[in-house]
Amino acid sequence: MSDSKSKLTIDINAERESPTRTTVETRGFELTVDETEEMGGTNKGPNPLEYLLVAQAGCLNVTGQQIATEMDLEINQLEIAIEGDFNQSAFAGDDDDRTGLQDITVTMDVDADADDETIRTWAQRVEERCPVSDNVKNETAVQLSVDP
Amino acid sequence: MSDSKSKLTIDINAERESPTRTTVETRGFELTVDETEEMGGTNKGPNPLEYLLVAQAGCLNVTGQQIATEMDLEINQLEIAIEGDFNQSAFAGDDDDRTGLQDITVTMDVDADADDETIRTWAQRVEERCPVSDNVKNETAVQLSVDP
Repeated sequence: MSDSKSKLTIDINAERESPTRTTVETRGFELTVDETEEMGGTNKGPNPLEYLLVAQAGCLNVTGQQIATEMDLEINQLEIAIEGDFNQSAFAGDDDDRTGLQDITVTMDVDADADDETIRTWAQRVEERCPVSDNVKNETAVQLSVDP
Repeated sequence: MSDSKSKLTIDINAERESPTRTTVETRGFELTVDETEEMGGTNKGPNPLEYLLVAQAGCLNVTGQQIATEMDLEINQLEIAIEGDFNQSAFAGDDDDRTGLQDITVTMDVDADADDETIRTWAQRVEERCPVSDNVKNETAVQLSVDP
């Protein structure tokens, strides 16, 4: 990465507590990821794909503010609903389909001091700029190393 | 999606608490996403990109168990570190680079009842099957609708 870019490294450290439960630490925050009892877990926290959508929702809000500032509009209220479909058979290895979320839909309910067309332009720019949406929509290389 | 697939819908509902802080609800769990004070936030929770890596870590653990069961090996301990680079200038609109995490690296420290080559095969399969890794590595369409 060139020197002209203001790079920030994001990192987490995770530990397996059980076959389904993971404790994740980041900057002093500790989070629990788990699976529901139906999925063989202990339901001590949201599941991984729910965390993915939590990330996207939080990101759309922050990005929403960034774009609103650029467009000089005021957001009074914002609600975001996100859903996607998970193919359990693919995860179980019984199906060649992809395992990640499919058919992700984001619905934003916005109250802002702007006309409808401006708000639609704002929403489009938010979705394009949002870092987590970028990682979901586009390819990102992941390098894996394992220490057996 | 065909009837042969066992589809599970994952969903969240989020509300803007402030320009940087979002409260997200999923299946009765409530999470707070925020930005650090340096980024203009109130640091009441991890930031969106940290949540993305939390999702991936939790997912690698659960997927790790799935693959271990398929390969008939026992995992005694697993630690996962993930990091990626965020280009703040791109987010601010000052740079044409992508805004999502780049150069994501996953490091797995595994203690399992298997030889090193088997563990490397296990890790490779985990990374390939992991739903969140799939969403990060490959393209996924996101449909946006806005209610002004």
